[in-house]
Amino acid sequence: MLDNIDSILQQECKLHINDRVLVGVSGGPDSLCLLHTLHRLGYLIIAAHVNHKLRPEAGDESLFVKQFAKQLGVDYISCRVDVHSYARELRISIEEAARTMRYRYLFEQAKEMDARAVLVGHNADDQVETILMHLLRGSGLSGLRGMEFITLPNPWSQDIPLIRPLLSTWREDILNYLSENELIPVLDKSNLDTAYFRNRLRHELIPILESYSPHIRQNLLRSGQIMQDDYSALQQLVNTAWDRNLVRQGTGYLAFKLNGLLELSPSIQRYFMRKAIGYHLPGLIDVDFDCIERGLGFLSETKPDGQVDLVAGLCLIKEGDLFWLAHGKDALPVSDFPVLGYGVQFTLNISSSLGLDNGWELYVEEVPDPVLALEQSNANLDPYQAWVDGGEITLPMIVRCRIPGERFRPLGMNDHSMKVSDVMINLKLPKRARSTWPLVCSGQDILWIPGYRQSQLARLTPESRLILHLTLRRLSTA
Amino acid sequence: MLDNIDSILQQECKLHINDRVLVGVSGGPDSLCLLHTLHRLGYLIIAAHVNHKLRPEAGDESLFVKQFAKQLGVDYISCRVDVHSYARELRISIEEAARTMRYRYLFEQAKEMDARAVLVGHNADDQVETILMHLLRGSGLSGLRGMEFITLPNPWSQDIPLIRPLLSTWREDILNYLSENELIPVLDKSNLDTAYFRNRLRHELIPILESYSPHIRQNLLRSGQIMQDDYSALQQLVNTAWDRNLVRQGTGYLAFKLNGLLELSPSIQRYFMRKAIGYHLPGLIDVDFDCIERGLGFLSETKPDGQVDLVAGLCLIKEGDLFWLAHGKDALPVSDFPVLGYGVQFTLNISSSLGLDNGWELYVEEVPDPVLALEQSNANLDPYQAWVDGGEITLPMIVRCRIPGERFRPLGMNDHSMKVSDVMINLKLPKRARSTWPLVCSGQDILWIPGYRQSQLARLTPESRLILHLTLRRLSTA
Repeated sequence: MLDNIDSILQQECKLHINDRVLVGVSGGPDSLCLLHTLHRLGYLIIAAHVNHKLRPEAGDESLFVKQFAKQLGVDYISCRVDVHSYARELRISIEEAARTMRYRYLFEQAKEMDARAVLVGHNADDQVETILMHLLRGSGLSGLRGMEFITLPNPWSQDIPLIRPLLSTWREDILNYLSENELIPVLDKSNLDTAYFRNRLRHELIPILESYSPHIRQNLLRSGQIMQDDYSALQQLVNTAWDRNLVRQGTGYLAFKLNGLLELSPSIQRYFMRKAIGYHLPGLIDVDFDCIERGLGFLSETKPDGQVDLVAGLCLIKEGDLFWLAHGKDALPVSDFPVLGYGVQFTLNISSSLGLDNGWELYVEEVPDPVLALEQSNANLDPYQAWVDGGEITLPMIVRCRIPGERFRPLGMNDHSMKVSDVMINLKLPKRARSTWPLVCSGQDILWIPGYRQSQLARLTPESRLILHLTLRRLSTA
Repeated sequence: MLDNIDSILQQECKLHINDRVLVGVSGGPDSLCLLHTLHRLGYLIIAAHVNHKLRPEAGDESLFVKQFAKQLGVDYISCRVDVHSYARELRISIEEAARTMRYRYLFEQAKEMDARAVLVGHNADDQVETILMHLLRGSGLSGLRGMEFITLPNPWSQDIPLIRPLLSTWREDILNYLSENELIPVLDKSNLDTAYFRNRLRHELIPILESYSPHIRQNLLRSGQIMQDDYSALQQLVNTAWDRNLVRQGTGYLAFKLNGLLELSPSIQRYFMRKAIGYHLPGLIDVDFDCIERGLGFLSETKPDGQVDLVAGLCLIKEGDLFWLAHGKDALPVSDFPVLGYGVQFTLNISSSLGLDNGWELYVEEVPDPVLALEQSNANLDPYQAWVDGGEITLPMIVRCRIPGERFRPLGMNDHSMKVSDVMINLKLPKRARSTWPLVCSGQDILWIPGYRQSQLARLTPESRLILHLTLRRLSTA
């Protein structure tokens, strides 16, 4: 068995004999066996024990692990945690709280002590039980593949892997190893989480399944291994799609190309969505199937914009060509837009400029050559520039935000007037940018919606003499 | 339910109301419900019944189906098959024989009668049982995804799909439909194959699983649907890899680029191998996992050439940059090579040609300009051409196959001699082509191994006067 574990440590887990590793040790058979074999193989070990204080004998167990580590001559660290109050605080189950606190401690210590990895003792029977639990729950590939020998990134670290060297070693072999080496573990409490259900699987369901298929445990273990590889192949596709479609990311928000997502196969769309949710909620292991389908259904609707709540405060927001996954609308960044405070207004004169939020500037200059200006104006394709007839307007111009219900006559539309809000929608201006978008006005009337469309009002004619060239430009990226 | 089935027929099964379809009808609840709903929806139906003659009541059931079809005014065809003798002949189980004969009949008739599809009555419970059976057997994604609404290609046809419109309809709903429409089916024998094991799953195991997870049937059905999509996404990758790496295909053989396969992810390698086996054995549904691993293990070994038996007479053959999957070595094509009968020899004179098997020709011409010839010879990169000094050789030249143990001095290797067999191995000439490969000789001595390397013997020098230009060329592809 030692040789087998050695080869798994090197080949599957990518560990080297000189690596410093932190081993989670409950004192049960699995972790005791893991600690003992690692020590015999010559790894540099820190044995880490978490006292959950959930049972009267917990203190004795801590002492046992401490002494065992001392006998081996292995570094030992431990902590005591208050699972009950943590569970109350986060409104999660005792099992979930214990698990979270345990892993958090192990990874904090691994980081602090410069360990290369955190090792835990899950065995092949645990793996089979995990796969069966996922099966009963209706999980897809991501659950049915079971646990991995090496998980990185994991919910607790981006660079320290969680490693399970015993994942293909049966419980029976572990117990044999312990008895051969005269090691007596404490009563197994390593499967504290979901213990009751797991025990029912272990002692009732698996024996029943064995009466249908004598090799069911071996079969499930192997299926899981094959599905790991299938899952990896799909994740490669997801990662490629992710890189191609990610437009923005930040704390609390992600933005992707909508069409890019919709072009993916249904399978990759689902994993894409799971990955996006995982970005925001790295601890959330089991994202509900219906949640994913609801999100994808919303995105594939032809209805252009809108918003839908997804899970744990996350929502999906469609906005033109993009969709956002964010902790509510307030989490979205506004730094792309030339924001103007709501209700504020500024004046803008000939040959002057007005600074706007996020590094934008409105700039006005007089053009000396009316003929050239008319040509430039007629040929203009840049919505961030406009030419107006200064003789037809009230100076100084006013810069303000839109007024609810306000109308405007876009240049070239034969005096047909449109609601400013409709123009903004047609032009795919994100809704959250609309109310703070700067408008350049002559008195009450809109001359120009910068970045979008100029008005009919004060448009250049061959008779124009005082010609003003307006520019909205970004001086720096905020 | 009618609306639901209608939408499944159109959206999942891609059927149109005017399509002529052939429906397999046993007379059991599923097929009766399917026939009845299709008729009500207005499809053009042929009801096809196979009398397996396995039970005393089989004749009555045939009569029942015939009368039922007549009442609906639907075309009816049927056949009687001798399952026992077919099973004996092919040494397969009675269930497998019945299944094979049934589907073969349905698809033969569908083709004959120009039907667009063959429809059968598998329901959602059948699907769950199928998934569970695969799970117990240790299947991966390809089994755990269960059956498809539409399977094309299938083992019986490349262009007529096998369609299962009731695959998401529960047995209970089918029975309700029958009783609402006052239809009384015959005792269900549609699950004749693997009936005993299936019945144990249905009546024992699934109720037990429901005590662990009340929605287990719904969960498994949904998992299967998700895994269908995962499987499709992976199959796209496999198909791309297949097209990129397939070098030759024919009856009994396939050849692929070896490195192309080895560069794929483990997951795609496995599906690639399954697809290749399926090409040869379209009826072989469950290819053993170990068989796949053995094949891939053989291909990834660094040992260059060799052969390994795979399954049902198929073997893998490594040959240079390629590997073959074929029904033994005898199945491999030789038509690529300029074959010469073993032991035969021919003469080749100046300005003459010699036809070889498979459309190849050896051609000799005298070159008038010695200076130009020397230049061309020195610059030559084409192993299918050689220039020799006609004054240094015995005419006519001899064309023959190699002699065991024969040696040869390759041009440019300073009179160092090599075994012809080693040269051929180094040059990646397939083993089976080596013994019939034509060699051009002067008396006993090799002048040229066409397509490979010229000898030192009679190489051109500035003093050469009678210059012969030798070409091996393919006139046509055999």
